[in-house]
Amino acid sequence: MIVIMSKSMREEELQGVISTIENHGLQAHIVRGAEKTIVGAVGDKSRLVKIPFQAMPGVEEVIPIITPYKLASRDFKPEDTIININGVTIGGNTIPVIAGPCAVESKEKLLEIACQVKEAGAQLLRGGAYKPRTSPYSFQGLEEEGLKHLALAREKTGLPIVTEAVDMNSLEKVAYYADVIQIGARNMQNFALLRAAAKSNKPVMLKRGLSATIEEWILAAEYIMSAGNPQVILCERGIRTFETYTRNTLDLSAVPIIKHLSHLPIIVDPSHGTGKWRWIQPMSQAGIAAGADGLMVEVHQNPSQALSDGGQSLTPEKFKIMMDKIKGVALAVGREIAL
Amino acid sequence: MIVIMSKSMREEELQGVISTIENHGLQAHIVRGAEKTIVGAVGDKSRLVKIPFQAMPGVEEVIPIITPYKLASRDFKPEDTIININGVTIGGNTIPVIAGPCAVESKEKLLEIACQVKEAGAQLLRGGAYKPRTSPYSFQGLEEEGLKHLALAREKTGLPIVTEAVDMNSLEKVAYYADVIQIGARNMQNFALLRAAAKSNKPVMLKRGLSATIEEWILAAEYIMSAGNPQVILCERGIRTFETYTRNTLDLSAVPIIKHLSHLPIIVDPSHGTGKWRWIQPMSQAGIAAGADGLMVEVHQNPSQALSDGGQSLTPEKFKIMMDKIKGVALAVGREIAL
Amino acid sequence: MIVIMSKSMREEELQGVISTIENHGLQAHIVRGAEKTIVGAVGDKSRLVKIPFQAMPGVEEVIPIITPYKLASRDFKPEDTIININGVTIGGNTIPVIAGPCAVESKEKLLEIACQVKEAGAQLLRGGAYKPRTSPYSFQGLEEEGLKHLALAREKTGLPIVTEAVDMNSLEKVAYYADVIQIGARNMQNFALLRAAAKSNKPVMLKRGLSATIEEWILAAEYIMSAGNPQVILCERGIRTFETYTRNTLDLSAVPIIKHLSHLPIIVDPSHGTGKWRWIQPMSQAGIAAGADGLMVEVHQNPSQALSDGGQSLTPEKFKIMMDKIKGVALAVGREIAL
Amino acid sequence: MIVIMSKSMREEELQGVISTIENHGLQAHIVRGAEKTIVGAVGDKSRLVKIPFQAMPGVEEVIPIITPYKLASRDFKPEDTIININGVTIGGNTIPVIAGPCAVESKEKLLEIACQVKEAGAQLLRGGAYKPRTSPYSFQGLEEEGLKHLALAREKTGLPIVTEAVDMNSLEKVAYYADVIQIGARNMQNFALLRAAAKSNKPVMLKRGLSATIEEWILAAEYIMSAGNPQVILCERGIRTFETYTRNTLDLSAVPIIKHLSHLPIIVDPSHGTGKWRWIQPMSQAGIAAGADGLMVEVHQNPSQALSDGGQSLTPEKFKIMMDKIKGVALAVGREIAL
Repeated sequence: MIVIMSKSMREEELQGVISTIENHGLQAHIVRGAEKTIVGAVGDKSRLVKIPFQAMPGVEEVIPIITPYKLASRDFKPEDTIININGVTIGGNTIPVIAGPCAVESKEKLLEIACQVKEAGAQLLRGGAYKPRTSPYSFQGLEEEGLKHLALAREKTGLPIVTEAVDMNSLEKVAYYADVIQIGARNMQNFALLRAAAKSNKPVMLKRGLSATIEEWILAAEYIMSAGNPQVILCERGIRTFETYTRNTLDLSAVPIIKHLSHLPIIVDPSHGTGKWRWIQPMSQAGIAAGADGLMVEVHQNPSQALSDGGQSLTPEKFKIMMDKIKGVALAVGREIAL
Repeated sequence: MIVIMSKSMREEELQGVISTIENHGLQAHIVRGAEKTIVGAVGDKSRLVKIPFQAMPGVEEVIPIITPYKLASRDFKPEDTIININGVTIGGNTIPVIAGPCAVESKEKLLEIACQVKEAGAQLLRGGAYKPRTSPYSFQGLEEEGLKHLALAREKTGLPIVTEAVDMNSLEKVAYYADVIQIGARNMQNFALLRAAAKSNKPVMLKRGLSATIEEWILAAEYIMSAGNPQVILCERGIRTFETYTRNTLDLSAVPIIKHLSHLPIIVDPSHGTGKWRWIQPMSQAGIAAGADGLMVEVHQNPSQALSDGGQSLTPEKFKIMMDKIKGVALAVGREIAL
Repeated sequence: MIVIMSKSMREEELQGVISTIENHGLQAHIVRGAEKTIVGAVGDKSRLVKIPFQAMPGVEEVIPIITPYKLASRDFKPEDTIININGVTIGGNTIPVIAGPCAVESKEKLLEIACQVKEAGAQLLRGGAYKPRTSPYSFQGLEEEGLKHLALAREKTGLPIVTEAVDMNSLEKVAYYADVIQIGARNMQNFALLRAAAKSNKPVMLKRGLSATIEEWILAAEYIMSAGNPQVILCERGIRTFETYTRNTLDLSAVPIIKHLSHLPIIVDPSHGTGKWRWIQPMSQAGIAAGADGLMVEVHQNPSQALSDGGQSLTPEKFKIMMDKIKGVALAVGREIAL
Repeated sequence: MIVIMSKSMREEELQGVISTIENHGLQAHIVRGAEKTIVGAVGDKSRLVKIPFQAMPGVEEVIPIITPYKLASRDFKPEDTIININGVTIGGNTIPVIAGPCAVESKEKLLEIACQVKEAGAQLLRGGAYKPRTSPYSFQGLEEEGLKHLALAREKTGLPIVTEAVDMNSLEKVAYYADVIQIGARNMQNFALLRAAAKSNKPVMLKRGLSATIEEWILAAEYIMSAGNPQVILCERGIRTFETYTRNTLDLSAVPIIKHLSHLPIIVDPSHGTGKWRWIQPMSQAGIAAGADGLMVEVHQNPSQALSDGGQSLTPEKFKIMMDKIKGVALAVGREIAL
């Protein structure tokens, strides 16, 4: 912890900071610069974070230099985490693609699209049974009926299923039916839901919050891991910026950064990340080239009839073309697309 | 709903849009411009929002012109909503100030600060018993014990209490003890929590999400209202921008905009909105001058010993000075500070 | 300068950093923490900033703790700078309001509006003769003819004039006619223009860039001051965020922060800061309450016929009402509106 | 142009809008919806943009549906623009890489690095002779001497040179020596400089402004094109967001969007886009995979001794590895790296 004293600090203010540090059983190192004095506080991390240096007289700024997460950090576990979902792995050399409709709309439509995405090479099936909607008046999903359709689609195709839990009620049901529990962007800091999802002992896919920094996102993963579940998959899905042409700004630099800071796998969702089907293929290619461990893509047999987010769904034909293209990109970066 | 066709659309694509509109029992008005053709879709709102125009071939952009919320809109209810909390009103001419520590730390400290803020003119007492923390390793609050201390402080001072519910478990307890249920920024789109808070029939203070647009924020209020609880207080607490000097950027323009779009009261939280005690007084003054219906300010008897957010807390002495200043500002804009 | 070494640094990398510091005639202080080692580099600032620590092996992060500006800092000059513009002062206890049309449209219209804003209490007249326009096809201003109209309006009303120089050509002319040279947001880091404006020896009003941090903004002022012109007025005019309801997000917390970090006066422009006339009055009130040293407001006799930015202009009637309101707010915060 | 009337508009306000439209020789189409009335204004674009609908009574919002640029749009010129720089093409199937130091530091160092980047496959040499620096006290470049070194390096290696003009003075010199004139992010809306650069008749590389929308960026290109110079290369270099881990957020979705909206070539600068050498290779791969027409990368023989931005420079060795990797990615997306 580095404490920067203000230029106009008084000597007793400096002594106050030093004695607070020492009273906590920690050590204080003082560096007097030409302009400002800094104090390095060294010792047990758990004690350090509890001292409200920021509020002490004479203190201008406090810079925490200790990594605030542990289990999720690559320092703690240098080798990549590989998560096995009924035989499909995420985090290893082989890159799986998760595909399916935004929302489960009916049994028939789901079974049809599940076969089509499998045929094109998808390794997991996605589909929302519970939809978190900005407006209380929008379609909120088929709920448990949707989960049953997903389970049936898994039975028919063999594809493991990924679906979102939006709250405690849906979590219980999702944990029962799904192979991977998705936590959406709006719930990234819904800590009770994170802890409850952890208890399910199923892999958890954690989407990045709309304005979450990379550190906050890893800390949200740490919530799940510290509750006993090491199987966390991170999913970059775009952040909120001033640009209005795309729904969000897909932050692909998060991919190599997460791989550097953490051992957890990271996948990319270009459907939400851009909001338009037109940009899904190029951004899927880019995601793979940046080092992503997987992709999640919305596919709908008839996007213009979709009950939600049709504008950001590929048709099965376009999805097939995309799959062909990303195979080559994966090879070029020393990976391969699971098929 | 306005559908803008792409410049290169084909005639049958335009016809496709028109017939989809008409098949839903709505009317289509076509305006052919020099560059582009637009289609105005007119009719029942609930049908309109369900058509995924965005995914139709030939469509470039879709512009919803209908307000997506109803109960919260000033069109629906032109007169200001005034919320009565055990005799303290928010939304009327008189402006109450909510003050207290970030977190309840002990019975003694809470009682002391409660008396001090009351003495300085605060009308409601705030204090966190459950704390939503970015790190799983940070202090998470005294929980129910904290709520009991708050109830005791209310008994001693007569001040109604405002405290945050962070999840379903805490909500039940908060609803039992508190006079106003606070929903934090991270939970603004935790729709299950919003609906559950609504059921409590206590006033709900809804903080703006860190990257929530004004429209999304009003829609979150609509969730609470459509679940049967019209007593919603909005709280501006800063949004996330590129500026790093302040913890957040307090968006005071949200104050007059909310007053224009909605009948709900809006208050300002300059503690979280700036993250530093030094800016609380000027931004409190500015919030009142912009038309806010209240303020929420963190006050701690010894900020440098606080267990959380000490850096953004005023001392009781500084709070008193602030209260004196805002009285004059309130008068200047035709309001008065409740005392 | 604080250099934070990466957790996995090798001992020789640390020695490399230390000897680089010492080879520059500076001192290195080493603090070894439980997790990471930091090096405090102390000594002559101008040497320190030249060492590219960031690129050295083993270095994780570099934190500059020295203030990168000098002349503009309050440390350097504790007392407020008060700028005198032909008898009108900015930065003192009395707050002047600058008003006028976005663009000078004709001699007659300018003279009329100049009289109206003077009548309502404005102390300076604004009006654009050169307009920086996002599109090459938009109205670009009357240029020198516009400046002549402004000079005439000054003659008739006695109001000093503020007008924008958009490039070197216009600067020469603006410096000849104007009393204050305005540098627009897009040109905040047009360093050649800043230096040239400095040479004019007229006061310079420097608008904040659309995505400029407060530090970058003060550094832009430092460019002007280090070129020999101490008369800089800062103008907050909104920053770019994800919110689309307003044209920009007016960052009023910049007002007290600038007053804290610098001795320069700061004014607020709620017209550009919000983009809609409806929010000008409340945000003017808020700006004054936050401690602003002045306001700049667009006023047009017939906003719906304006050649640019009519939507963010007040009518003379509404301007008069606003002036009445802010007088009271100014008094409440111990200032007064110049009249 | 679509004019959305407010819900509470009066009939005469609607008539006012209609007659204004008709008085300008345009046509008005009225669509009365259940909630709101919209007016479609159709006719000559240049007249339409001049009407300040936003300021008319009863008007709530104005939506321009006409593309505000022409020469830069793909509608106007469907085929890709390919720019030839002394035999090196940008915009065609073959992808050139521009490499070199951030700043030209000395003749010897420049010649050495020029040979090294050529050896590794770079097709153009970059290097700053004039540096736009946030602080007036930072190293500002070798100026004309630096340009002479660049010209010498071109002579020795055959690589065309790309270098930045920061203002009118430097532009004249840069236009004389360079093969491509670079306009930096801070100058993207320095319209005088854009027009002057256009007059040089040399290709212009236009970097995206730090908070520029894609539309504003294309409009800046339109300034150059409308001044008679069709040879514009766009360069994505990151935008400013709340994320602090990277210097900027590289917006790779801009690549396919620009290719869709415009015929101009677009390249990616991962050095400025991320601010750290560590992310250059993965983001270069991602840029190519997203469809970029080129890359611009900082390379320095000894980044830890660089006079500016050493932290975001690759060593020649790492640059060589990067070049090898991107060749495969280019092939995978049907392109090839020029060598």
